[in-house]
Amino acid sequence: MRAQKSKLTFLLMTLTIFSFGQGVKKDKSDSGAQEMMIRIAAIEVDSNYLNEYLDILKGETEASVKLEPGVVCIYPMFQKEHPTYIRLLEIYTNKEAYETHLTTSHFKYYKETTLKMVKSLKLIDMEAIDAETMPGIFTKLN
Amino acid sequence: MRAQKSKLTFLLMTLTIFSFGQGVKKDKSDSGAQEMMIRIAAIEVDSNYLNEYLDILKGETEASVKLEPGVVCIYPMFQKEHPTYIRLLEIYTNKEAYETHLTTSHFKYYKETTLKMVKSLKLIDMEAIDAETMPGIFTKLN
Repeated sequence: MRAQKSKLTFLLMTLTIFSFGQGVKKDKSDSGAQEMMIRIAAIEVDSNYLNEYLDILKGETEASVKLEPGVVCIYPMFQKEHPTYIRLLEIYTNKEAYETHLTTSHFKYYKETTLKMVKSLKLIDMEAIDAETMPGIFTKLN
Repeated sequence: MRAQKSKLTFLLMTLTIFSFGQGVKKDKSDSGAQEMMIRIAAIEVDSNYLNEYLDILKGETEASVKLEPGVVCIYPMFQKEHPTYIRLLEIYTNKEAYETHLTTSHFKYYKETTLKMVKSLKLIDMEAIDAETMPGIFTKLN
């Protein structure tokens, strides 16, 4: 529990520093700025492979966030009532960051090894509603 | 753009401080600890009311995050191809925090004023896949 808190604190601090250095472009009126790419991936996994799939997904998510500056976050979840229904909230700094992501070895490994495990995949492009105030998830004010 | 970056940085710093003070309970083995509540709200809004609905939603989201310590994040989005399809990623520190949220005046105002604007509402309970490493969205390591 304590270790988890420390880890969260560390991650938040690092993310804060990251936001100083790179910023997150979201303002359409800023000439030359490219829009953040926000997406929900809706995946259904074959129940025979669920544990194996989750292990590979965790590895892929961790590598993406750790190694790719353009991956702002990947937040993987499953539905409590249907654990084979996976949902990922993915945020990339821009479209190029996403295209780079597709060429990485960790993504390719994930894609190839989980191909037979995935029953369906739907990629849903999203837009943040309150982009003016914030990139969205970092909203805790007190 | 610069103002946005500053605001993001401020929010992240505040969230970092918050994580020192309160922590986010996720470890089931920690006796007495209660599990974070994670949910996706899937809402379809009557297109006649879309702008009005979004204004009220923004106000509600901002008030929740600002005034309620138990609201870790509310991340509102819409589908690019179907702007009336709203999705919220909601994270509360625990079930009690969510129940408190339901009693607040800003939530009640939102609920009452948008009742006629909402065509459908589905609340989907989620669980973070990588709860061990992190509460999930704060994953930027470098």
